[in-house]
Amino acid sequence: MGVVQTQTATLFAPPDALRLECGRSLGPIEVAYETYGALSPARDNAVFVCHALTGDAHAAGYHAAAEQRPGWWEFMIGPGKPIDTRRYFVICANILGGCRGTTGPSSINPQTQQPWGLDFPIVTVADMVKVHKRLTEHLGISKLLAVVGGSMGGMQVLEWAVRYPDSVRAAIAIATTPRLSAQSIAFDAIGRSAILADPKFAKGLYHAGETPAQGLAIARMIGHITYLSEEGMHAKFGRQLRHADRYRFDFTSEFSVETYLDHQGRAFVERFDANSYLYVTKAMDYFDLPAAAGSLEAALAGVKARFLVISFRTDWLFTPAQSRQIVDALLARDKDVTYCNIDSHYGHDAFLLEPERLGRLIHGHLESVLHDSSIAGLCLADRTAAPPRAPKRLDLACIEDLIAPQSTVLDLGCGDGTLLARLRQHKGVRGFGVETDEEAVLACVDRGLPVIHGDLEDELAKLPDDAYDCVVLSQTLQALRNPNAVLHDMLRVGRVCLVSFPNAAYWRRRLRLLVTGRAAYGENGSLPWHASALQRSLSLRDFLTYCRMQHIRAVRVLALNPRTGRRVQKVPNARARQIVVMLQKAPPPSAGPQK
Amino acid sequence: MGVVQTQTATLFAPPDALRLECGRSLGPIEVAYETYGALSPARDNAVFVCHALTGDAHAAGYHAAAEQRPGWWEFMIGPGKPIDTRRYFVICANILGGCRGTTGPSSINPQTQQPWGLDFPIVTVADMVKVHKRLTEHLGISKLLAVVGGSMGGMQVLEWAVRYPDSVRAAIAIATTPRLSAQSIAFDAIGRSAILADPKFAKGLYHAGETPAQGLAIARMIGHITYLSEEGMHAKFGRQLRHADRYRFDFTSEFSVETYLDHQGRAFVERFDANSYLYVTKAMDYFDLPAAAGSLEAALAGVKARFLVISFRTDWLFTPAQSRQIVDALLARDKDVTYCNIDSHYGHDAFLLEPERLGRLIHGHLESVLHDSSIAGLCLADRTAAPPRAPKRLDLACIEDLIAPQSTVLDLGCGDGTLLARLRQHKGVRGFGVETDEEAVLACVDRGLPVIHGDLEDELAKLPDDAYDCVVLSQTLQALRNPNAVLHDMLRVGRVCLVSFPNAAYWRRRLRLLVTGRAAYGENGSLPWHASALQRSLSLRDFLTYCRMQHIRAVRVLALNPRTGRRVQKVPNARARQIVVMLQKAPPPSAGPQK
Repeated sequence: MGVVQTQTATLFAPPDALRLECGRSLGPIEVAYETYGALSPARDNAVFVCHALTGDAHAAGYHAAAEQRPGWWEFMIGPGKPIDTRRYFVICANILGGCRGTTGPSSINPQTQQPWGLDFPIVTVADMVKVHKRLTEHLGISKLLAVVGGSMGGMQVLEWAVRYPDSVRAAIAIATTPRLSAQSIAFDAIGRSAILADPKFAKGLYHAGETPAQGLAIARMIGHITYLSEEGMHAKFGRQLRHADRYRFDFTSEFSVETYLDHQGRAFVERFDANSYLYVTKAMDYFDLPAAAGSLEAALAGVKARFLVISFRTDWLFTPAQSRQIVDALLARDKDVTYCNIDSHYGHDAFLLEPERLGRLIHGHLESVLHDSSIAGLCLADRTAAPPRAPKRLDLACIEDLIAPQSTVLDLGCGDGTLLARLRQHKGVRGFGVETDEEAVLACVDRGLPVIHGDLEDELAKLPDDAYDCVVLSQTLQALRNPNAVLHDMLRVGRVCLVSFPNAAYWRRRLRLLVTGRAAYGENGSLPWHASALQRSLSLRDFLTYCRMQHIRAVRVLALNPRTGRRVQKVPNARARQIVVMLQKAPPPSAGPQK
Repeated sequence: MGVVQTQTATLFAPPDALRLECGRSLGPIEVAYETYGALSPARDNAVFVCHALTGDAHAAGYHAAAEQRPGWWEFMIGPGKPIDTRRYFVICANILGGCRGTTGPSSINPQTQQPWGLDFPIVTVADMVKVHKRLTEHLGISKLLAVVGGSMGGMQVLEWAVRYPDSVRAAIAIATTPRLSAQSIAFDAIGRSAILADPKFAKGLYHAGETPAQGLAIARMIGHITYLSEEGMHAKFGRQLRHADRYRFDFTSEFSVETYLDHQGRAFVERFDANSYLYVTKAMDYFDLPAAAGSLEAALAGVKARFLVISFRTDWLFTPAQSRQIVDALLARDKDVTYCNIDSHYGHDAFLLEPERLGRLIHGHLESVLHDSSIAGLCLADRTAAPPRAPKRLDLACIEDLIAPQSTVLDLGCGDGTLLARLRQHKGVRGFGVETDEEAVLACVDRGLPVIHGDLEDELAKLPDDAYDCVVLSQTLQALRNPNAVLHDMLRVGRVCLVSFPNAAYWRRRLRLLVTGRAAYGENGSLPWHASALQRSLSLRDFLTYCRMQHIRAVRVLALNPRTGRRVQKVPNARARQIVVMLQKAPPPSAGPQK
């Protein structure tokens, strides 16, 4: 971005003061912000970036040509970067209660002309977002293309999407949570205790003298452990000693991890204010999206943004399970959501340390929203994914044929999204995928396809009834742990289901078993039993018997022979190598003839 | 135990001072200890209990009849309890550097007649164990029946077993680690920082005035989070507010988890000394079993004790993976070790909170060691497990017949240990099991069988070459993810392998597939495809082809028909429902005829 400048807007000047959640009013409020790129004439290309706990408005570029350290999300924002400033107008602003230019407890209380200290009102994430919403209005923007943020920035993203559903096209929530766990509250509380216990804290009025540096450093050190993962710390430090090859047998810091934390603590007190630390951690503790609405599902019921939720495998502060709560609530309300759990060992900090995968996801999602919104002047110039190839597998070609144009399709085990991309291109289908492989999930997002990163046997149960016109399960039935549960869930979620599987009763297989006594074959008849994936054998007849018993209607049965490339009309259970079945729920059995 | 008294021994009186690892000498050393039960005339029934970080010698009973709170491991120690004081003589002693009666930094420095404070020498876990070893000698005991301890107590157990291999029959290490991770060191370091930063700490010489209560409380609060699990904290506190139904919008503690931690901090400073906290956490940080020997395997090479290692699923301080390092190193050296990962949500604290399962494991292991040691006067009066039933399954009966008397047997997927218990009883076999189900693992320990709690596909690779005469895999081959790797590992670990599996080419199955086009059958021919476990089909012929290709010798093939209860002699691939095969590595292929 080159050299950028922090600007300041003065908002909520009395009598228009901001009514805070705590009941008190605050105004005027100064807001420090930076912008990158140019606002389009239609004012529809703005991306608001929300910073985390101790971040600031300086997300990208340098404040001076000689500066060494760029903004905190330099890899993400800039020309040609995932949030491409050649196309988007990017805004980042310091949060209310912070200490980096926006009004906070170190600001001057207009009544007393002294720093607020602990007289500053308690602020919440909702208050922060209200201030930023006003800033966007001040900039002449009524609808954001996207709101993006990690950690506490992700909380702001959730708040934006819930509070201003008509002002957010895309919501990208990274490494965040709908509310803190007891454990996270406990860490915050101990950090605050350390600050409050520091005699130099002086009830928050330390501005004339020494600051409570030791208390703040301890709070930061505690926080820092929660930002890293155990395995990340092990990889970085292990049990390495900093300055020696043997123990010193005293209480000075000697393990590398100790001196690193000392350094983190010292560096932090240089740039951050102890009062602000109290306020922003408290805001985080108070954030509780489900509380007011009664449930997370209810809280998210009104959102209109297309969601991208990203978590990191080793994040134990805001865990993948907490991101999944957001995803599951959105799924339950049939909202548009993509989810990826990135396999990173960086823990919570990964949202600042995984440029490649994070960049692909954010780039792909923004592109997809642009595309769907048909925003003028911002064409999809650089889609990275290859155009979807025609299916080589006969069963996939048949499935493609069977799907109605303009329908909605759920593809279970969607791989890199080839089928869904073809259906979108050729039939105008609105597709959604579930896929367990991370690289395949990234490929789907590259194509602009919504996808959930997870095991289909776990995911399916979370989807609402009758959410899709069609649910597809191709060549996976035979490898499921619990095929019965999956089939019933498919029929619950979709009006029609398409299932393909290899037919164990194909005549060559029968004959081989009968004549040679060999039973084992792989998916395409070539892999021996000890090298193939674990899978069960079933024939068309087995499957149809099952359907009858379970009151499932097999409305179409396609018996295929991929070797000839043709459908088999007669004696399908003997002549088909592969089967494609279209299923529907049977109508409830009649109660017998009425008298 | 009723009312008990703490006693004190004075050891290492000069000139016999203890040479510490740090190079300094210390003596005399007072040791506070308690004993429960009676020492046998042969002095061979002593169980030494090692306490954790902030514990003390008071493990069981009450110090006065009116006392409310018993010793810290009351559920474990007493008449009829898992460590049964009717049979064992139990000793528990405060650690060196502690503050509960054993010499530590709050003791009087004989040179100055003042409390030591930070002049006290840095002590290590090895120093602590040397002191306790001397105590046992003082009590006239040269060989302990067992050493038992959790957390830092578990480190002492490891140290005992390594340092005094001939003095320990059984080592029971619970929720412990061979060395702290960077993350655990970091938590300890921050706790110490909080104490050292408290102005009342006064370089450790606070004994005349106020104590550094705030620093110590913060250290304890940090520690406490690491003792609980995220899910345990969630279950206990969630986001509950302590005294209100809405936020107070100030910085007083209001979440239940905050007030709980405040209470823990306050209570701790009443009973524990800040200097001791520095010394014992430092000892923990310094503990590094692999360091001196070069590897954990090398460190454990000389141990003779029978090990029981126990971890807890949600323990994130000393993780199951760290317990597994101990187990794996013992397995690699072919040591006698039993392992169970208890599915508890209590986190690290579970070693104080899981009486039932912990009790069964410790009781079973002690019984088994007693039995093997044939210690006079301590018969196995109360074995809880039922005598092993004769096998109903024909393949198991055949496997039992094929195993040589007095051999060593590894049973992969050993269930509740029925086969191994029968082999022990009828053939004098020394058995060892691997089992994934926790309840089955507990049942094995009830029977006194060594067993590893884990997935056989992961465990097998950890065992050394040629460790067993025979390795058994019954009715599991067809459900393995990677049968080829397992079979090769079995042949590496055992001189002979016995494998049983259902024969997919049994003539009824062939005929059924041919005539009816039905392929799906369960293990015993009854479960339909959608209800059976995921498993592959293979015939005897498939298996023998595989063996030829892989240079595995099938030295015995038993073709069975369980319905008739007989072996099949002719046309086995058509007439057998089940197969038992005895396998051996083929000799390396000859290099061709010599000229």
